[in-house]
Amino acid sequence: MRYYSIEEMTTWERFYRANFINSLSGFKPISLVSTINSDGVANLALFSNIIHLGSDPALIGIMNRPREASPHTLGNIESNGHYTINHVHSSFVEAAHQTSAKYAREVNEYVEVGLTPEYKENFSVPYVKESSVQYGLELSEIIPIKANDTFLIIGKLKHVFLEESTVSHDGFINIQRTGSMASLGMNAYYETIPVKRFKYAKVGVTIQELPF
Amino acid sequence: MRYYSIEEMTTWERFYRANFINSLSGFKPISLVSTINSDGVANLALFSNIIHLGSDPALIGIMNRPREASPHTLGNIESNGHYTINHVHSSFVEAAHQTSAKYAREVNEYVEVGLTPEYKENFSVPYVKESSVQYGLELSEIIPIKANDTFLIIGKLKHVFLEESTVSHDGFINIQRTGSMASLGMNAYYETIPVKRFKYAKVGVTIQELPF
Repeated sequence: MRYYSIEEMTTWERFYRANFINSLSGFKPISLVSTINSDGVANLALFSNIIHLGSDPALIGIMNRPREASPHTLGNIESNGHYTINHVHSSFVEAAHQTSAKYAREVNEYVEVGLTPEYKENFSVPYVKESSVQYGLELSEIIPIKANDTFLIIGKLKHVFLEESTVSHDGFINIQRTGSMASLGMNAYYETIPVKRFKYAKVGVTIQELPF
Repeated sequence: MRYYSIEEMTTWERFYRANFINSLSGFKPISLVSTINSDGVANLALFSNIIHLGSDPALIGIMNRPREASPHTLGNIESNGHYTINHVHSSFVEAAHQTSAKYAREVNEYVEVGLTPEYKENFSVPYVKESSVQYGLELSEIIPIKANDTFLIIGKLKHVFLEESTVSHDGFINIQRTGSMASLGMNAYYETIPVKRFKYAKVGVTIQELPF
């Protein structure tokens, strides 16, 4: 294996370093965050930094870049208090990636990239109709991360839409069956192959497999 | 699609709900966090909540569960200030999963599950020799998340070890080539298939593919 020190990495060209360090932490989710601004214009933004925070209460976090680099999603969540998260599939990954272009605040990214807003269950913010795993959140708290001016946006889970046939007997959701992708770095998208599922590990007990 | 409200999810049996909500946020990284306690005993713990926070400075976060549920990694990082993160591959996924059993503080998980500690570059904490993507961090800050008593542990990247042949011309690391896995929920592990990589998206410019 090759050794890379932080001193060496710091000398690298900016995008080379960003690609390398973004890939290093491993595979990530990839979803479209849908919001509405105070003028009622819908926004779509691509996020890979989506974090399971807990199941009871059901909390999901997203890491937002510094405000000057990525102001729309953060501002819309602050003003509206509600947002939706929608898994990305191969069938619309180009459109999803295109939402990461720096559109002006008054531009509706659904229209620009050709995705379909879906309003339902009296939620003020649309879901992405093309997505087969959609969930709606209510803002709980925004935590500023001083180390690099980013923000951890914490949301309370309120609504979920998905194919019931993907849910196993124990609640596990086989998101690979409806084509949800994984991402890597800033711009790479993957399909997945299930390898192993295990029971809860216990001291002194041989590990046991679970079906998917 | 089936609609699930939070009111319905709240009525579910605890593990069913945990499986469902843990899967909902999508695919995650999967790595072993290696630490040393104040008596010099090495600890290994399996984490899927590993978060890219930024490249400049190079910061990587891990979400730690409430202290009473998962005290060892958090305590060791607080006392030692250094830790390593090591990707999980199919070849040792059983051993990796077994580290999630609740071993006592004085137990060395490397010995218990049969993985090999590798000390190098004068770092006080070992890497997992079986892993082909390893990195070493220095504690920057621990942010308590009041909403559910979890902790965001922020580390500064210091050292990286990986196969140079996996790095593309632009710094992107093809972690799938050395078998790094993705995870889902609390207990499922996946291999990945590269589908698409795109250039940085720009307004009004047709999306362009990049090689892996």
